[in-house]
Amino acid sequence: MGTTQLESVPEPKYWHLKTVLTEALDSEFSVGEILPNERDLAARFGVARATLRQALEQLELEGRLQRRRGVGTTVAPPRVGVAVGTEQHTWPGAAGDAWQPVDSVQAPPPAAVAAALETGADESVHTVRRSRMSHGQQVATELLYIPAASVPGLTAIDAPSGAARARAVLRELQHLPLEGEDRAVELGSARAEDARELDRLPGSPVLVVTTRFFVQGRTAALSVATYRADTCRLTFGESAGVEIHHDPEKRAS
Amino acid sequence: MGTTQLESVPEPKYWHLKTVLTEALDSEFSVGEILPNERDLAARFGVARATLRQALEQLELEGRLQRRRGVGTTVAPPRVGVAVGTEQHTWPGAAGDAWQPVDSVQAPPPAAVAAALETGADESVHTVRRSRMSHGQQVATELLYIPAASVPGLTAIDAPSGAARARAVLRELQHLPLEGEDRAVELGSARAEDARELDRLPGSPVLVVTTRFFVQGRTAALSVATYRADTCRLTFGESAGVEIHHDPEKRAS
Repeated sequence: MGTTQLESVPEPKYWHLKTVLTEALDSEFSVGEILPNERDLAARFGVARATLRQALEQLELEGRLQRRRGVGTTVAPPRVGVAVGTEQHTWPGAAGDAWQPVDSVQAPPPAAVAAALETGADESVHTVRRSRMSHGQQVATELLYIPAASVPGLTAIDAPSGAARARAVLRELQHLPLEGEDRAVELGSARAEDARELDRLPGSPVLVVTTRFFVQGRTAALSVATYRADTCRLTFGESAGVEIHHDPEKRAS
Repeated sequence: MGTTQLESVPEPKYWHLKTVLTEALDSEFSVGEILPNERDLAARFGVARATLRQALEQLELEGRLQRRRGVGTTVAPPRVGVAVGTEQHTWPGAAGDAWQPVDSVQAPPPAAVAAALETGADESVHTVRRSRMSHGQQVATELLYIPAASVPGLTAIDAPSGAARARAVLRELQHLPLEGEDRAVELGSARAEDARELDRLPGSPVLVVTTRFFVQGRTAALSVATYRADTCRLTFGESAGVEIHHDPEKRAS
């Protein structure tokens, strides 16, 4: 493919470039392949580096490209469907839970979490950190906030720290009669710590799933789970795993 | 607040700047207020424009700022909870549906949609466009793909075009016995047409919700809904509307 001049296109240049790049990805590159550097790509398509960068960002948002630390920009594999909330009405840590406990600390939660849990502003809550793997890769990290009142039987003696402590907290939580849960999904940007765990750059787009667990009309626990937005498609419902890749520009032909 | 020098910070500059900017947004600016231009902001915080822009992008991802065409960057109101899939097992267009039909055309769908619907590559399907309002603002746009086989009773005579046609298609769809549905949520970038409708710049981050509707084990209809990611929090479950604003950096104090 030769140099493609985009000078005469009325829509934003990066937009047309994105389409051209998408076609190049389909026809010339395979999954995992590293793209040429920005200078070479800009020269090849006859665009400014700023235009190129905008187009690359679009393709990253759409899950076609991945920027990886120390590697560069690579062609992304299709997104992985990750089931969320198919196990309605079970506590975190119940049999079949896809999450692995990592550790548990006691600390005052973020203000919004304290408000939802109706704990005092400076009151410590159990904060269980868990991670979720899919296809051999960590796809999500979770902070699960549990007020002391939700785990009254917990003792400091059994498992004072680490993953064992996290499991002890979750085991105690199972004793409460779970009444229901609700969830919200929104766009966020990866905090430094989450980014490290998820092998992403700080600030990368993530999907944040907030789940409230209800007991006797109150929020007895609250989960904030951060999923990689580049590789994950969150699936809901009985036959989880919709296999539609979002690419409405491309028509059947 | 005077000039804040960020030179000596070991973490990425934009990351610390983001925290500083967040504090400024909380203390000095009110919702809807327009931020000073990039040059002035960069000077005030003693950072390069590129660093500033990265921090602004983060804050936009997190829903704190909005970039609007012809207006500039404004302080965003808290995100609005938009219920998705609370009305399980009802067809689009059933009583209480939050979506408004806009029009309906017959066209070959994107390749991935044709594959899910098991229609032929060049086969036209009914494509109903709908829009969704919340708090007086359009928050989402939807393309609903319905194969001719799913609406056998539809005639061309009743309502040949426009919103009336869309309603006629949905009315016919109600005759099928819906067995179930599943959903996936993923990050996307706004196509030019969707961006126009949603009053966003093309390529802005959006949340794409794909829903398959099953009849007799096959996909009888498929919806691709595009939600503004800046203003929307998608809520799932019985008591939809989790009011946690994602801000885990901020601790209760």
